[in-house]
Amino acid sequence: MFDFTPTGIAAREAARALASTGSDKKNEALILTARELIAQKRSILEKNEEDVRAAEEKCVKSTLIDRLRLDEKRIEGIAEGVLKVADLPDPVGEVISGETRPNGLQIRKIRVPLGVVGIIYESRPNVTVDAAALCLKSGNAAVLRGGSDAIRTNVVLASVMRDCAEKAGLPRDSVILLADTTRDSANAMMRAHGFVDVLIPRGGAGLIRSCVENSTVPVIETGVGNCHIYVDRDTDPNMAVNIIDNAKTQRPGVCNACETVLVHRDVAENFLPMLKKRLDEHNVELRGCELTKKILGDCVVDATEEDWAAEYLDYILAVRVVDTIDDAIEHIGKYSTGHSECIVTDSVSAAEKFTSSIDSAAVYVNASTRFTDGFEFGLGAEIGISTSKLHARGPMGLRELTTVKYIVSGRGQIRR
Amino acid sequence: MFDFTPTGIAAREAARALASTGSDKKNEALILTARELIAQKRSILEKNEEDVRAAEEKCVKSTLIDRLRLDEKRIEGIAEGVLKVADLPDPVGEVISGETRPNGLQIRKIRVPLGVVGIIYESRPNVTVDAAALCLKSGNAAVLRGGSDAIRTNVVLASVMRDCAEKAGLPRDSVILLADTTRDSANAMMRAHGFVDVLIPRGGAGLIRSCVENSTVPVIETGVGNCHIYVDRDTDPNMAVNIIDNAKTQRPGVCNACETVLVHRDVAENFLPMLKKRLDEHNVELRGCELTKKILGDCVVDATEEDWAAEYLDYILAVRVVDTIDDAIEHIGKYSTGHSECIVTDSVSAAEKFTSSIDSAAVYVNASTRFTDGFEFGLGAEIGISTSKLHARGPMGLRELTTVKYIVSGRGQIRR
Repeated sequence: MFDFTPTGIAAREAARALASTGSDKKNEALILTARELIAQKRSILEKNEEDVRAAEEKCVKSTLIDRLRLDEKRIEGIAEGVLKVADLPDPVGEVISGETRPNGLQIRKIRVPLGVVGIIYESRPNVTVDAAALCLKSGNAAVLRGGSDAIRTNVVLASVMRDCAEKAGLPRDSVILLADTTRDSANAMMRAHGFVDVLIPRGGAGLIRSCVENSTVPVIETGVGNCHIYVDRDTDPNMAVNIIDNAKTQRPGVCNACETVLVHRDVAENFLPMLKKRLDEHNVELRGCELTKKILGDCVVDATEEDWAAEYLDYILAVRVVDTIDDAIEHIGKYSTGHSECIVTDSVSAAEKFTSSIDSAAVYVNASTRFTDGFEFGLGAEIGISTSKLHARGPMGLRELTTVKYIVSGRGQIRR
Repeated sequence: MFDFTPTGIAAREAARALASTGSDKKNEALILTARELIAQKRSILEKNEEDVRAAEEKCVKSTLIDRLRLDEKRIEGIAEGVLKVADLPDPVGEVISGETRPNGLQIRKIRVPLGVVGIIYESRPNVTVDAAALCLKSGNAAVLRGGSDAIRTNVVLASVMRDCAEKAGLPRDSVILLADTTRDSANAMMRAHGFVDVLIPRGGAGLIRSCVENSTVPVIETGVGNCHIYVDRDTDPNMAVNIIDNAKTQRPGVCNACETVLVHRDVAENFLPMLKKRLDEHNVELRGCELTKKILGDCVVDATEEDWAAEYLDYILAVRVVDTIDDAIEHIGKYSTGHSECIVTDSVSAAEKFTSSIDSAAVYVNASTRFTDGFEFGLGAEIGISTSKLHARGPMGLRELTTVKYIVSGRGQIRR
C-alpha cells in the first residue's frame, strides 16, 4: 500500500506558503523554469529517449508513443507555454465582491488558491510542466501522478521545476511528482481527502471513471467528449459540410472533435452525399443508421448502440437521420458527455431551442466544436476542459484553479 | 437494494423542463406553496404530531424532537421563508461574461441550473420546504431524502409542494421525496452519478463523512463547524468577552457557534478570569489546557485531544493559551473544519496575518462568528454553509445552486 501521508503533509505545507506568495516570486519561478528547460534540453531528451525505447520494447501503441516523445521543438514549445503562464494575470487576491452590511460589518469575498491540486494523467510529459505551471501561478501546490511510460522524463522535468521554485524562494514541494506510478499511488491520491483539495484527472474515459468511482477527494471530470453536430432543416449545406469536416478531421484525436452527426430528415437526401464526398478526402469511415445507409449505400457501416456512445478520437463518424430537432436534442441528451455540441441552422427559433435545451459545457450555433479550448476562449491557457457542472465547466484557466474566502471585518459586532 | 433509476429518470426529466421555465411560473409555484402550507396547517400538524409521538416512544433525544416538532408559528415561518425565496432575483439566465473573439465568434457565459440536486438531511421538516423552494427557484429538480422520524410530516409537505408545482404548470417531479428512509435509499442516491448533479448533505459530521466516503456524485460538504476565536495580545478585553459570549451562547447548537478559544499568553492571566465570569452566567463548561487550569483553577476540566477537534454544539468551550499568533494559526490549521474563525485584535499586522493565513470559508476580525449565514451575508436565503472549497464556499444562496454554460455563435467559423 502506497502511503500518501508524507506527500500530503509536504504538499499542504507548500500550499500554505504559496497561498501568501506574491506574483513576483511565482513568475520568477516560471521564468527560471522556462530558461532551465531550454538549458537542460539535452538531458531531458536523453531521459525521454530512454522512456521511448522502453515503451517501444513493451510494444506500446504508436499514437501513445507519439504523445510520449519529445524533441527540441516540443521542449521549446513547453518552455514557451510556461512563459505565457507567467505573463497571465494572477487571479489570487482579486476582490470578487464586497459590501458593508447594515450593522457595519465589512464583507469582502476574495479569490484564494484551492490549496493542493492533484493531477493524474497519462504518459504525456508536456502535461507535467503545463499543469504544474498553472497550479504554481494560481498559488496551488501540485501533486502529479503521471503515466509509468513517461516516468524518466517526468522525473527530470519535475526536478527542474522544483529547483527553479526553490531558487525563486518558493517551497521545493510546490511541485511534487509521485515516483510510484502503480495503481496504488493513484488510488492513494484519490482517497487523500484532507490532503488534496481537488483531483483533476486528464486522460481517457476509463481513467476519469475510475477517479469518479473511487475518489473521496472532489474530482473535476475533464476532457471526455462525445461531441455532436446537428444539421437542421434550414441550413446552408456548404457551411454544414465545412464545419463537420473541420470538427472531425482537423485533429481527430482530441476531446472537442465531432463524433456523431445528426441530420434532419428533410435535408438528408441532399446533404449526406455532399458530406460523404468531403469526408472521403480524409478517408473518414461512416457508421450510419438505416436511413443513412439507404441514402449513401453499403459503404456505410451499420451503427450500433455503442457507436452512438463512442468517443472515437479517430477518422470515424457516426451518422443518424432524425425526424425533428426534438429527436436530435433527445439523442444528444442520451449519449452526450456534456462537452460540446453544435447546431448548424439559419433558423433563429431552432438555434434558440437547441442552445437552451442542450445541457453541455459549450453549445455552438454555426461554428466548429473544435473551438472549445482555453486559448480559443481567451483564457490564455487551460488545465483541462471540465465536463463537470460543479465549480468549473468548459475550459479551465487560472481562475478555475482558485476558490474564495470571505473576510469579515468588524468593530465588535455580535449577533442579536 | 433500493433502485434509484425510476426516481433518477423522473427527476432528470423534471429538471430538463425546469431549466427552460421562466421565473413567473416558478414564483407562482412558490407563492401557491406558501398559501397551501397555511391552508393545510391542520393536517400538517396532525402528521407531525404522529411523527413526534413515534419519536418519543422510540426515546429520541429531546433536542432532536425539538427540531422535528412543528407548531402553527413554525409553519407560518416556513411559509414566509418560501415567499422570501419567491421574492429573490432568479439567477438563471444571467450573462456572466461575454466577448467577441478576433475570429468573430461570439461567446457568452450564462448561468443555468445545475439540474438535479440531492439533499440528504435529518429529521427537520423545515429543511424539506426550504431546500426544495431554493432548488425550484434556481431551476433545479430536488430529490429529498429526509430522516425517518419526520417521514409523515415530510410526505405531506412534499405533496403540498408537488401539487403547487403542478398547478403552476411545472412538472410534479420538480420535488421528489424518497419514501424509503433506510440507509439503502441514501446510499443509492450517493451512487446516482449521471442522475444527481450534486449532493448536499445537511446534518452532523457523521452524515457528511458518509457522503464523502461513499458518493460517486459530487458532494458539497456543509455545516460542520469547529469554529475558533483567537484573542490576540493587543486586544480590548471587553470586546473579546462580548464576541466570545455571543459566539458561544447566543445559539450554541448551530455550526457557526464558537467551540474553541485561543488566548495569547501575555493577556491570559488578565483575560481568562473576565471570560470565565461572563460565561458562568450561562453555565458554560470550560475545558482547558494546563495553563488555563493554572489561571482559572480546578473548575476547568482537562482538555484532551478530542476536545480540540470537537464540535460541541453545546454550552461547552475548549480554551487554550498560546505563545504566539503563529501557534494560534497552527492550532486552527490542525483542528478547524474550515468554517469560521475570528481574531480579536487591535493590531493591523496581526489581523492581516490571521486573515491571510487562515484557510476557512469565513475569517473574521473583531466580530462574532455567528454572522456566517446566508441572511447575514445578504444572500437572502441559504441552502447550507459550504466548508468545501470547490464550487461554493461559505453560505450558499441561489447562485450557488447554478452552473454555467458557454453559448458560442458563429457564421461558419472553423479552426485552422
